[in-house]
Amino acid sequence: MTDFLSQCRAIVGAAHVLDTPAEMASFLTDQRGRYTGKAVAVLRPGSVDEVAALVRACAEHRVALVPQGGNTGLVLGSVPDTSGRQVLLSLARLNRVRKIDPINRTMTVDAGCILQHIQEAAAAEGCLFPLSLAAEGSCTIGGNLSTNAGGTGVLRYGNTRELCLGLEVVTPQGEIWSGLRGLRKDNTGYDLRDLFIGAEGTLGVITGAVLKLYPQPKASITALAALESPSDALQLLVLMQDHCGASLTGFELMSRYCLELVAQQFPALPKPFAQPHPQYVLLELSSSESEQHAVGLLEQAIGAALERGVIQDAVVASSVAQSAGLWQLREHISPAQAKAGKNLKHDISLPVSCIADFIEVTGPKLDAAFPGCQLVCFGHLGDGNLHYNVAPPPGISNEEFLANQDRVSRVVYDSVESFNGSISAEHGIGALKRDELVHYKSAVELNMMRAIKAALDPLGIMNPGKIL
Amino acid sequence: MTDFLSQCRAIVGAAHVLDTPAEMASFLTDQRGRYTGKAVAVLRPGSVDEVAALVRACAEHRVALVPQGGNTGLVLGSVPDTSGRQVLLSLARLNRVRKIDPINRTMTVDAGCILQHIQEAAAAEGCLFPLSLAAEGSCTIGGNLSTNAGGTGVLRYGNTRELCLGLEVVTPQGEIWSGLRGLRKDNTGYDLRDLFIGAEGTLGVITGAVLKLYPQPKASITALAALESPSDALQLLVLMQDHCGASLTGFELMSRYCLELVAQQFPALPKPFAQPHPQYVLLELSSSESEQHAVGLLEQAIGAALERGVIQDAVVASSVAQSAGLWQLREHISPAQAKAGKNLKHDISLPVSCIADFIEVTGPKLDAAFPGCQLVCFGHLGDGNLHYNVAPPPGISNEEFLANQDRVSRVVYDSVESFNGSISAEHGIGALKRDELVHYKSAVELNMMRAIKAALDPLGIMNPGKIL
Repeated sequence: MTDFLSQCRAIVGAAHVLDTPAEMASFLTDQRGRYTGKAVAVLRPGSVDEVAALVRACAEHRVALVPQGGNTGLVLGSVPDTSGRQVLLSLARLNRVRKIDPINRTMTVDAGCILQHIQEAAAAEGCLFPLSLAAEGSCTIGGNLSTNAGGTGVLRYGNTRELCLGLEVVTPQGEIWSGLRGLRKDNTGYDLRDLFIGAEGTLGVITGAVLKLYPQPKASITALAALESPSDALQLLVLMQDHCGASLTGFELMSRYCLELVAQQFPALPKPFAQPHPQYVLLELSSSESEQHAVGLLEQAIGAALERGVIQDAVVASSVAQSAGLWQLREHISPAQAKAGKNLKHDISLPVSCIADFIEVTGPKLDAAFPGCQLVCFGHLGDGNLHYNVAPPPGISNEEFLANQDRVSRVVYDSVESFNGSISAEHGIGALKRDELVHYKSAVELNMMRAIKAALDPLGIMNPGKIL
Repeated sequence: MTDFLSQCRAIVGAAHVLDTPAEMASFLTDQRGRYTGKAVAVLRPGSVDEVAALVRACAEHRVALVPQGGNTGLVLGSVPDTSGRQVLLSLARLNRVRKIDPINRTMTVDAGCILQHIQEAAAAEGCLFPLSLAAEGSCTIGGNLSTNAGGTGVLRYGNTRELCLGLEVVTPQGEIWSGLRGLRKDNTGYDLRDLFIGAEGTLGVITGAVLKLYPQPKASITALAALESPSDALQLLVLMQDHCGASLTGFELMSRYCLELVAQQFPALPKPFAQPHPQYVLLELSSSESEQHAVGLLEQAIGAALERGVIQDAVVASSVAQSAGLWQLREHISPAQAKAGKNLKHDISLPVSCIADFIEVTGPKLDAAFPGCQLVCFGHLGDGNLHYNVAPPPGISNEEFLANQDRVSRVVYDSVESFNGSISAEHGIGALKRDELVHYKSAVELNMMRAIKAALDPLGIMNPGKIL
């Protein structure tokens, strides 16, 4: 290890090889504070060539490396294990926007760029980079790509995967693959780009990317609809898409309990309805034409939904400011849960058409297993993605409930599986869901994944213990 | 081989193992009639289990297989070589639409379904399957997926890759991977789906797919704009996208020479302008609201373009019927070329912002090498995809010109490379462009592709000689 660390210092300079506990601490604990790993050192390369040289040193000395961006992941994908034999490779110093091409509508960036800086750089050119999620102030695009992050823009613009045209990757052999293509069409062999996207750093280190930009919409307007049931929410989704097409840019489901929790914990936030309703949908419409066009189209569609009895009531924001207020309700669900106590989180997805049935059958199953447990069920309904969180029954301590974590998750995931859903919609697998992956994936699929891992990373030095 | 064929007959029935030259003929010649291969037999399985059993027989007897859908490919990807030792695996009998889910907006289909049937089945449910290309009456979705086909809907809806949520694949070991997920978000390990898409049957046989459906637009309206230059066409693209966002569903460039060729060969087609112009753009706008909305938005955007001098003149179709007439001009370019004589085709893509510069520098290079050659340059400008075809100079015979094929292509592809473009935008590599791939791809990328091929298909039985 002494040899190895000297080599690393020669590559990046001694100042960028951190090896004291104090220097390393913030890199080794995951963002929810549930886990702390150990590392030989934290390496902070300042260029792609330095990344490549460090990976070659790791390969030579058989040292496993864990790439890390903003360390905001939720599945323990970007922290090392507790062996103390891995190194942490921080991409944070690779944070340049390399190029913006407003005619090609692309932006070429370093992997360590913070998502919000990318959004701002796009906006400065009159463009939109539509990836948006709670951690955007500190997560990096390399991490977003490696976990194929989702967020609130997926309904219209797709996941991070769909927002990327090209990649630059340092391979497990320490070679640089320059796949930074800004092409909308390119059918020249295997799709390596999409193999590295979502691979959580287990096949190589993403160091740069070409991102897609979109025209900035002229206005986005939201409405909050009150509904009888998740089944009505599905009817509303179909109706809205038929009326509004690609102008429908957000469709978020929230149960009555979610908004009650927000009202309890954040009493200053707006309370749009006098009476409670079983379910709510936050709708967002964006127009390339004008605010008037967006408001008109939204009011027309909401009118049709009221007329058909699909919704019980609705509030349409009359301004961009009022729209932001409605979004705050949605954004405060997770903070409200955190203030209220511990809960078990499940980031799941289902065929959109199965959401209502899933909610209907899974609640009673959980209640049978853990009488009185509280469901905090909300999420990106338009994408079939629910954040299906379970809080302890009143009177049960957090500790006692958390001890049941595996049993709770088994009930939820078994139900997900019965509807052909996914146990990780937008967070990835990391170390946290690795055993679940083996439980739910077919042997055929796991074997193909293992064969690819062994083919590209035969020494097994790239983020071992994550995914597989 | 006798053993092998008996085994095949036992699996699919003797009637579905074709081995006489007459029975096999139509499967062995490519659709442009340039190449004829040989085969041990043509196998026509009727179910996924039969495909799997046939692949196991191939693996056991080390017989290489060539999957084929509608045999409409343009790069010799779906015809066997001339060794006479390969079998052709026709997916044509797997042609069921398995399921349509209008709420999830998905359709599950067999790989052998003809594209047009899929479009029609979607339309019958009030949905749109947006993949559309010239061969749609006979190509199959399995071939579209294996070549990641493009077509005219890419600007708004993406390539075939973006239209697929899940796959069913028979692996080179003859196992069935059931990846038929209808999920918008699923981050559970490596993206095998996108690895098989575009792999041209070299990693496995696609037998089924879950496709994305979209709301059917209420109306699509076209306009034909006349412009001074490709550079103005790029200005028009930016202006149209800023005005119309996702409503802009088509943006096709055609040079003056293209429309002159169409007028010569098909004099009955409309002639929208009294005077010729250097370039034309066919624009299509689709509205989820109404025909009036589409026409109004298109006229407004065209008005802005005229005012800013970006276009010289324009005709806006006043009805859906007139729109079809304008599309006919675009669709008759290839037939007009075919009637006029031989030409060398190049299906290339470039960063959209480089298209004007590419056209400006490449024409003179070709003219220097082959004085008087005629360029038929048109394509999906919004996707950066040009069909850049070169016809012989007057007085030079087809034969003499075709003898120069490699030199012509070298000039075109070297120019493409200098702009970081692609030598195959939407047709794939097949056997035709395999040597070009080695010429233009980096060793790092080729080595990763070869490692994946060897890992998944260690016996090398899946469509050998294609891509790699």
